[in-house]
Amino acid sequence: MSEFDWIDRYLRPLAKSPGADGLRNDVGVLRPAGSPLIATLDTLVQGVHFLSSDPLDTVGQKLLRVNISDILCKGAVPRDALLSIAMPGAFTEDDFAALCEGLRRDLDAWKIALIGGDTVRTQGPLSLSLTLTGTCLTESVIQRSGARESDRVYVTGKIGRGGLGLRDAQSGIESDHTAHYRVPDIPPPNTADLVAAFATASIDVSDGLLSDAGHIAHESQACIQIDLGQVPFAEPIRDAEHALEMATSGDDYQTLFTAPGSDERRLLATAKTLGVEVTRIGVVCAGESVTLSLNGADIPTPTRTGYRH
Amino acid sequence: MSEFDWIDRYLRPLAKSPGADGLRNDVGVLRPAGSPLIATLDTLVQGVHFLSSDPLDTVGQKLLRVNISDILCKGAVPRDALLSIAMPGAFTEDDFAALCEGLRRDLDAWKIALIGGDTVRTQGPLSLSLTLTGTCLTESVIQRSGARESDRVYVTGKIGRGGLGLRDAQSGIESDHTAHYRVPDIPPPNTADLVAAFATASIDVSDGLLSDAGHIAHESQACIQIDLGQVPFAEPIRDAEHALEMATSGDDYQTLFTAPGSDERRLLATAKTLGVEVTRIGVVCAGESVTLSLNGADIPTPTRTGYRH
Repeated sequence: MSEFDWIDRYLRPLAKSPGADGLRNDVGVLRPAGSPLIATLDTLVQGVHFLSSDPLDTVGQKLLRVNISDILCKGAVPRDALLSIAMPGAFTEDDFAALCEGLRRDLDAWKIALIGGDTVRTQGPLSLSLTLTGTCLTESVIQRSGARESDRVYVTGKIGRGGLGLRDAQSGIESDHTAHYRVPDIPPPNTADLVAAFATASIDVSDGLLSDAGHIAHESQACIQIDLGQVPFAEPIRDAEHALEMATSGDDYQTLFTAPGSDERRLLATAKTLGVEVTRIGVVCAGESVTLSLNGADIPTPTRTGYRH
Repeated sequence: MSEFDWIDRYLRPLAKSPGADGLRNDVGVLRPAGSPLIATLDTLVQGVHFLSSDPLDTVGQKLLRVNISDILCKGAVPRDALLSIAMPGAFTEDDFAALCEGLRRDLDAWKIALIGGDTVRTQGPLSLSLTLTGTCLTESVIQRSGARESDRVYVTGKIGRGGLGLRDAQSGIESDHTAHYRVPDIPPPNTADLVAAFATASIDVSDGLLSDAGHIAHESQACIQIDLGQVPFAEPIRDAEHALEMATSGDDYQTLFTAPGSDERRLLATAKTLGVEVTRIGVVCAGESVTLSLNGADIPTPTRTGYRH
């Protein structure tokens, strides 16, 4: 079977929405949406963003999830996707099928319509790009620049799993963390509702908690004070160094956001109702940096605050 | 200067629209649009879709133009772009700047807003993906499936330049064709108006004229009869073999479309007013294939009808 038949067999079945027109058209049609409609485009390269040893179905899921994470953190609902696959010469039909099976799982689970894309050959490693659109549940898009003095700082899920998972995967250890490194355990769809209702600023934790908190601090011209003792780390912390390690590793794909202190009670009650795991980890104050404490003592902010691919 | 500063210096200046928010947000915001809003995603890989010797500013322009071609052929106006760059280790700041200069030229010329994207490292060759949205000038999207018996078949511009240009570029010859191979001479913006007003089916000629005509034939369940003597080839044809060579090479990026025969006079007059070079090259009849003639004699349709990357 020719590689162009692979598209018929594996990819076309994933493109079921009217806007995809069975991948037979030159373009995908975005579904009508309330405004604002947003879009993100993330690329995963073998050997950089995933390991050559990672099963390809997990790579398909990771590709979707790193993009879903961007949409969710803006209080938006994922909608339509366009996919580009650059395949190395040795890529087989089984490889293609496995990749598509992973994509199918999360397209279905998140009700995302695959509406188009491109499949090409490369002399390099497998490279995957996905464009994902989303509909905001707010009237204007939540920026990184909206954090205000006396806001509280919140994060969903657990922090540090991406880094621990990479370490385990590289050592050949199969752990919960390894599973998260391959298929990020992103926050649930309801996260969009929570963020849309309360957030003044938001970002997804992809480079590392401190690095991404730094983006909010910089764009908001505010100081983000984080109490490392409050951060929901993936492992019980042994000491400051251990905490900093988990706070500066990437690939967590959780949502970090700020919200007015006066809303805290309602925010936490809403999170409980929505089933979104959320933890307060700090406050916003005057300044333009990230400051840290642990058990009441100041901790110097490290120079390297995250990991960039 | 760190490679992350390159984004500040070269890429951020290109992202001027409100929806791009200076590339400071996780997502781009699509501009409000009439419906339908469409999107395309094409990838270019060094050594596959462009030559290592091609100047990088031309690669930036090519990346935009292969996507613009998809939008134009649907009778739509290009709007917003998301860009992914996977850079090899040896990619320098000058390389990045040159690539961005080419992008800038065509973003400006086509009034396209760059609203987001991703920049990553790869151990492989330079790989570029671009998602481009467009607003249709029609109420429903023009498909490949709308060609009807007795429709006429039209193509914009010249056919065969992509193939001739690749040949010249590989031989180190600097010709008009080489220039087209590097920076495709796509049809003008007004093409969208012409196609929207008249086309029953359309496609862009990227794989080769016969291959892409075959897509319309297949999807429309109709026969596309092409008179090779009418095709506006890039070189005067010597014989059938020469014509078939130019009709089966890719990278032309012209618009191929069908329209009712009764509209022909008005179509040609409108094309003249709009400044769009368009030529009638055949008719639609019963069947489901592509048939060819030259000087009144039937020419067998070759097995290889195009070039797929």
